[in-house]
Amino acid sequence: MVGAGTVGGGVYEIVMGRLLERASQGKRPLWITKICVKDLSKPRSFHLDESITTLTTNFESIIHDPDIDLVIEVMGGTGVAKAIVEGALKNRKMVITSNTELISEHLDELEALIQDQRRLPRTGFGYEAAVCGGIPIIQTLQSCYTGDLIHKVSGIVNGTTNYMLGKMEKGAEFDDVLREAQELGYADADPTGDIDGYNVRAKICLLAKLAFGVSVPPSQVPCKGITELSSVDFEYAKLLGCTIKLLGTAERLHEAREWDGPLCVYVSPVMIPSNKTLAGITRNGNAVAVTSGNMGTCCYTGPGAGRFPTANSIVADLVRLADGQASTKPFPLQAKLDVDFDYEGSFYIRIPYADGLGIIKRVGELAEEAGVSIHSIIQNPIRDRMSADFVVTTEEAKVSQIESLCESINEQHDFCRAPCVFMPMLIHDDDF
Amino acid sequence: MVGAGTVGGGVYEIVMGRLLERASQGKRPLWITKICVKDLSKPRSFHLDESITTLTTNFESIIHDPDIDLVIEVMGGTGVAKAIVEGALKNRKMVITSNTELISEHLDELEALIQDQRRLPRTGFGYEAAVCGGIPIIQTLQSCYTGDLIHKVSGIVNGTTNYMLGKMEKGAEFDDVLREAQELGYADADPTGDIDGYNVRAKICLLAKLAFGVSVPPSQVPCKGITELSSVDFEYAKLLGCTIKLLGTAERLHEAREWDGPLCVYVSPVMIPSNKTLAGITRNGNAVAVTSGNMGTCCYTGPGAGRFPTANSIVADLVRLADGQASTKPFPLQAKLDVDFDYEGSFYIRIPYADGLGIIKRVGELAEEAGVSIHSIIQNPIRDRMSADFVVTTEEAKVSQIESLCESINEQHDFCRAPCVFMPMLIHDDDF
Repeated sequence: MVGAGTVGGGVYEIVMGRLLERASQGKRPLWITKICVKDLSKPRSFHLDESITTLTTNFESIIHDPDIDLVIEVMGGTGVAKAIVEGALKNRKMVITSNTELISEHLDELEALIQDQRRLPRTGFGYEAAVCGGIPIIQTLQSCYTGDLIHKVSGIVNGTTNYMLGKMEKGAEFDDVLREAQELGYADADPTGDIDGYNVRAKICLLAKLAFGVSVPPSQVPCKGITELSSVDFEYAKLLGCTIKLLGTAERLHEAREWDGPLCVYVSPVMIPSNKTLAGITRNGNAVAVTSGNMGTCCYTGPGAGRFPTANSIVADLVRLADGQASTKPFPLQAKLDVDFDYEGSFYIRIPYADGLGIIKRVGELAEEAGVSIHSIIQNPIRDRMSADFVVTTEEAKVSQIESLCESINEQHDFCRAPCVFMPMLIHDDDF
Repeated sequence: MVGAGTVGGGVYEIVMGRLLERASQGKRPLWITKICVKDLSKPRSFHLDESITTLTTNFESIIHDPDIDLVIEVMGGTGVAKAIVEGALKNRKMVITSNTELISEHLDELEALIQDQRRLPRTGFGYEAAVCGGIPIIQTLQSCYTGDLIHKVSGIVNGTTNYMLGKMEKGAEFDDVLREAQELGYADADPTGDIDGYNVRAKICLLAKLAFGVSVPPSQVPCKGITELSSVDFEYAKLLGCTIKLLGTAERLHEAREWDGPLCVYVSPVMIPSNKTLAGITRNGNAVAVTSGNMGTCCYTGPGAGRFPTANSIVADLVRLADGQASTKPFPLQAKLDVDFDYEGSFYIRIPYADGLGIIKRVGELAEEAGVSIHSIIQNPIRDRMSADFVVTTEEAKVSQIESLCESINEQHDFCRAPCVFMPMLIHDDDF
């Protein structure tokens, strides 16, 4: 194992605890014999059994050890961790990693490496822990849709932002909630990866690969985090019978029931009707909804992070690899499918304005110019006529149209006092 | 394949359609070469490719055919279907079945047969379709909790009754809803299996086996269906911020956080707070929530029945077995765990009464005699003083205590005008 922090400690406790009885059940015994750490003298969050496990600061001594069958990488980052994962694969070791960024940024390289090894005995690659901690979404996408066609994968895959949105729904403002999340250890000192949606983006790219067989470079994916949201958006959400969740989505563009268009991947806050399963995911929970031809929609919910949920997924991979039951193709065959980032939907647009004459008429004209049909206009009780907001919801439109509409509204300096905030709305009956 | 009805037709369409490209991907090709049916001349719901598939009325010709590797049983019933499944296993064929009743009623026999075959090549047993149609709950319990200890499995596993309860929540009465469900084809002409909870009981016994390694004979499991419920229970549910769902539950009895007691299995309607994931499962949807030591609670939701969801699970089993990735132990090792059917919880008790003096006092005395502490007493607006209902909710008690309390209330002929209706309530913060 490389790394012995929160998750690594959990893995160690489970493997050296609950899994020890495997030998008595006639199964291949599993031991963690070496752990690579940065600092040998640092206190550990778990009891190290020194009769079985040695600590080292030299990862080369792990990936070149002929007695080691499998390497678990839980150190994180994309520098040394990449060298370790690649080195282990090249040395014909099975690899398990929880490193979302590493896999999503270097998907094609890793896939080629794994492909090379596939005909050898004792190879395998497990990454269940890289998306949604404890929820077995990777294994489910690998093995439960083999006779099916997936149309859409969409989910709450970042617990930190889900926790923050839950607090904002109750009236708190963004800055206060961020500070609280940092104090609780949910958010990092540099919270960019969470709040700007980059962590969600890395995860939805992995899910898109699994569901559609397409490698989407994360850097190309439209990505909007939660930093623009304010408590007034939650007021309007309530008026609309909705709540706001940060979703990663990968779906085939479609007309009516024919999901045969290009693949579209994006990250954005979304207005979700309160009675949907995704709307009910509270605190730092995660959930992934999968819509497919045979199944309609299935939803998988659970803890998205944390010591034991994440360790549990690593251990499940470990047992599957040890027992020869893991998928020999950790990534599906490359599919020929166009990718289009101009996603479609009905949209929510909040327009911050200072009162004046003819605002609605002007917005209507701008919408017409952008080719966007307005579905409804909503005004909450106005507290300050010089600093108010109203909301436009639209009929189905492309995000590029909505962006250009918002840009032209933002230029109306006589009434528009701050940039518009927009997000798609889940409104179809079969959405989840 | 044995059986060519709704599900069988779906399996045939997927295997002979989407799976045909397997050969071009270097995978073991899969064909359905024989189908055993009752009546050769009956019209089919699918296009039969006669160049590949022959129909027969003789199942022996399938289970003794040396060219057949795997038998899919989708005929249902526990008579002939049992002979076919056992015959196929004895003839060293892999078997896939969607037959919940067959597996749950003959679990130990089947397990022994599968155990006998385990060291042979080409054996395997898949039954993903037997619980919750399309939701991959069997495979998840088989392979995602290998380093974990499950505390509780509880779910909505019967779509027909969930559909009916949804209609009753909107004010419809039981008899009307049953008639409608029958007309829609959701409920059988003889609806006993659904509405009396027997179908849920068979399924929760299978889930209990998977989660806890214990074979529980279905006939011993306390089983209450939905026939006692009336629209007034849904009125009270609303007052309590709840809805009513029919759940199958298997859990370790516990005090506080120590889930170390005996295993308890039961089927009953349950009061569920409206904000819980299980409360949001509408129409004929299914959901299973699994609580474990490492994970807290994960919830898996999706379609519980229907042609393609069920066929999808059968095909997923088929591909796993063909590719050698299915669990070699379809059932877990037998665990040493006591079973106790006297489940515990806070309870809802509805008391149908005709007005009189001192009723609450009398119920209070009877509760004290039964050792049950009352938590609250609720009275909805009374429309008819001679035909009203009030509700008592209790503190934690055993179901045997609640039963004896209800029996003694039922004997109070001066005010009690019909038998009490009781059910457990999900109230803990960590319940789902």
